Amino acid sequence: MPELRKDPVVGRWVIISTERARRPTDFHRDPVRAHGDRCVFCEGNEDKTPPEILAGRGDSPPNGPGWSFRVVPNKFPALRIEGDLEPTGEGLFDRMNGVGAHEVVIETPNHHGSLATMSVDEVADVLVAFRDRLSDLKKSPRFEYVLVFKNRGEAAGASLEHPHSQLIATPIIPIMVSEELEGSARYWKMKERCVWCDIIHQERRERRRVILERDGFIAIAPFAPRFPFESWILPIKHRSAFEELEVDETRHLAALLVEFFRRLSTTLNEPPFNFMLHTAPLRETGLEYFHWHLEIIPKLANVAGFEWGSGFFINPMPPETAAAALRGEAE
Amino acid sequence: MPELRKDPVVGRWVIISTERARRPTDFHRDPVRAHGDRCVFCEGNEDKTPPEILAGRGDSPPNGPGWSFRVVPNKFPALRIEGDLEPTGEGLFDRMNGVGAHEVVIETPNHHGSLATMSVDEVADVLVAFRDRLSDLKKSPRFEYVLVFKNRGEAAGASLEHPHSQLIATPIIPIMVSEELEGSARYWKMKERCVWCDIIHQERRERRRVILERDGFIAIAPFAPRFPFESWILPIKHRSAFEELEVDETRHLAALLVEFFRRLSTTLNEPPFNFMLHTAPLRETGLEYFHWHLEIIPKLANVAGFEWGSGFFINPMPPETAAAALRGEAE
Repeated sequence: MPELRKDPVVGRWVIISTERARRPTDFHRDPVRAHGDRCVFCEGNEDKTPPEILAGRGDSPPNGPGWSFRVVPNKFPALRIEGDLEPTGEGLFDRMNGVGAHEVVIETPNHHGSLATMSVDEVADVLVAFRDRLSDLKKSPRFEYVLVFKNRGEAAGASLEHPHSQLIATPIIPIMVSEELEGSARYWKMKERCVWCDIIHQERRERRRVILERDGFIAIAPFAPRFPFESWILPIKHRSAFEELEVDETRHLAALLVEFFRRLSTTLNEPPFNFMLHTAPLRETGLEYFHWHLEIIPKLANVAGFEWGSGFFINPMPPETAAAALRGEAE
Repeated sequence: MPELRKDPVVGRWVIISTERARRPTDFHRDPVRAHGDRCVFCEGNEDKTPPEILAGRGDSPPNGPGWSFRVVPNKFPALRIEGDLEPTGEGLFDRMNGVGAHEVVIETPNHHGSLATMSVDEVADVLVAFRDRLSDLKKSPRFEYVLVFKNRGEAAGASLEHPHSQLIATPIIPIMVSEELEGSARYWKMKERCVWCDIIHQERRERRRVILERDGFIAIAPFAPRFPFESWILPIKHRSAFEELEVDETRHLAALLVEFFRRLSTTLNEPPFNFMLHTAPLRETGLEYFHWHLEIIPKLANVAGFEWGSGFFINPMPPETAAAALRGEAE
C-alpha cells in the first residue's frame, strides 16, 4: 500500500509509492517508449491496459479497437483505490494510507498526434472526458480533490510517447491548490472581488501579456511566471469549477487550446511541457473567490538548487516577450 | 536591471532576469562545458572570472594561480549588487528592482574533484568560505537572506562541470524559508521545543532513517522526502545560524560531508544533485525555534505535472530503504 506522509515542519504531504519501489541501483532515467506493437496505448493493444472506465466509441465494444479516446486506470498507480485512510502518528510524524484514484486519458488513437495537431472535436472530447471523470469521482466521499495534468516529453516526466493526460484523485486538497485558495480568499476579503477576474480585467486592458483570446476564454503569460513561456488559460467569465463547463464551452475551449499549442509548438519547436488544471476542490464548488485555470509550463531548462531551496524562480524570459512571441510578433 | 515580481495570488516572488534574456529561439538546453583551457574556473584562467572576493592562498597574489578555493561574483548574476529596490505597483501587481548578490565558490582547482573525493581540509575551507561570505553579506542592510546552494551535473541545472557552489543574497526572505520558519514557530508555540531538535531526537532513537552520525552532526533521510535519497544534514546541538559555526565544527561537518557524498556516489554512481543550506535569516539569528540544516536532493527523475500542480511529490523510494542503502546495508 502506498503511504501518505506529512512533513512535520511545513505540512507538505508526499506519496511514498512503495509499490513502485525499486532497488537503489535501479535509479536511472527511464527512456520514453517508442511507437509500434509495443506501445500499450495504441489501437489494437487495448488488452495491455486495465479495462476502460470511459471511452469515445460508436458501436465498437469496450476494450477493443474503434475508439477516439479512452480513460483507463493507471497500471502503476501512485495511489490505490481500495482501503481506508487510517491516519496514524509515529512519534511526531503523521501518515495515512495512500488511498486515491489514478487514471490515464488516452487522448487519441494516433500515436504521433498532439494537442497542436488534433482536431477541435477530438480535443473537445478529451475535455468532456476530464469533466465527466471529475463529476464521477466527486461521488466518492473519500476524495477531496482531482488534479488533471499532462506530461509531454521525457524532460517533462513522460514515460510514454503516445498522447495522454492523467488525473489523480486525492483524499487531501494539495498544498499548492490550498495556497491558491487561501490567497484568493484573502484578496476577496479585502476587495470583495475575485483576484483572477481582476487579473483578466487588467490583462485585457493592457494586452501586453495576452497571448490569445476567443469565445469566452483567454490565454495569458502571467505577470510573475516561474518558467519561460509559462501560460495560463482561463474562462473570462467567473467560474470556479471546471466540471461546470457546458458542451458548447468545451468546443470553444478546445479551439483555443489547439490554437495555443499550435503556436507553442511553432515558437519553441514542439517543446516538452506539463499542464495542470487548477479547479475548485470537489466539496467546494461555486466559490465566488476562486476561478479555474489551466497552467502550462514548457520544460526548457532544469530546475536548480536555488529554486528548490528558496521557492524563488529565476526566469530569463519576461512574460511580455513570451506573449509577443506566441502572438507571432517580435516585441 | 533584473526585476522581482510577485504573484498576486500566492505571494510567490520570481526573478525576471532580463539581462540573461534570450530570444525565444535560443531556448535549448545548454551543454555542460568541458575541461581544459576553456574551463573558466580552472587554475591559470583566473582572468576569465570577475576579481575574487575571497580565496584560500598562501603567498600567491590575488587573481592568479596558487589557490585552494576562490569566491568570485557570478559573471551572469541573477540579481545586481547596485541600486535600490524601488518597489512599485502595476495595477494589482507588485514589482521591485532585482537587487542582490550572486557569488560563485570555486571549491578546488581540481576540475575533476568532487565533495566525495576532496580532502576534509579542502571541504572545511569551503565551509569557512560559506560562513565568511554569510557574515560579510549580513553587513549590508539591503539583504534579508543568503541562500547557499550547489548544482552538480547537468540534470541538476549545472552549466559548468568544475566543482563549485553558489550563493545568492536576496532582499526578501525566500518563501520556502518563510514556510519553514512559520512551521517551526507554530510547533514552538505548541510545545516550546524546537521541531528540528525533536526530529533529531526521534531519529536517533529509531535509527531507521539515520544515514550517518559523527562529532556532533547527523545525516538523515527525512520522514517525508520529496525525492529518492533526499537527505538532510544537521548539527545535533541546537543552532539556528550557520555562520555561528566554530572552526573545529567546520572540520567535523566537513568530515561528515565527505563521508556522506562518498556513500552517495558509491550507491548511486555519482548522481547529479543539488544541495541547499537553510539557515536563519540574516536579521534573525539566535532563533530558539529554528535549526539550520543542509538539504541534499539527488536528481534521479524529472519532476512532472502532478508535482508542479499539486505540491505533492510522488517518491518511489521509502526513506528507510534509502538510509539503509546509504549505510551500506540491504534493508
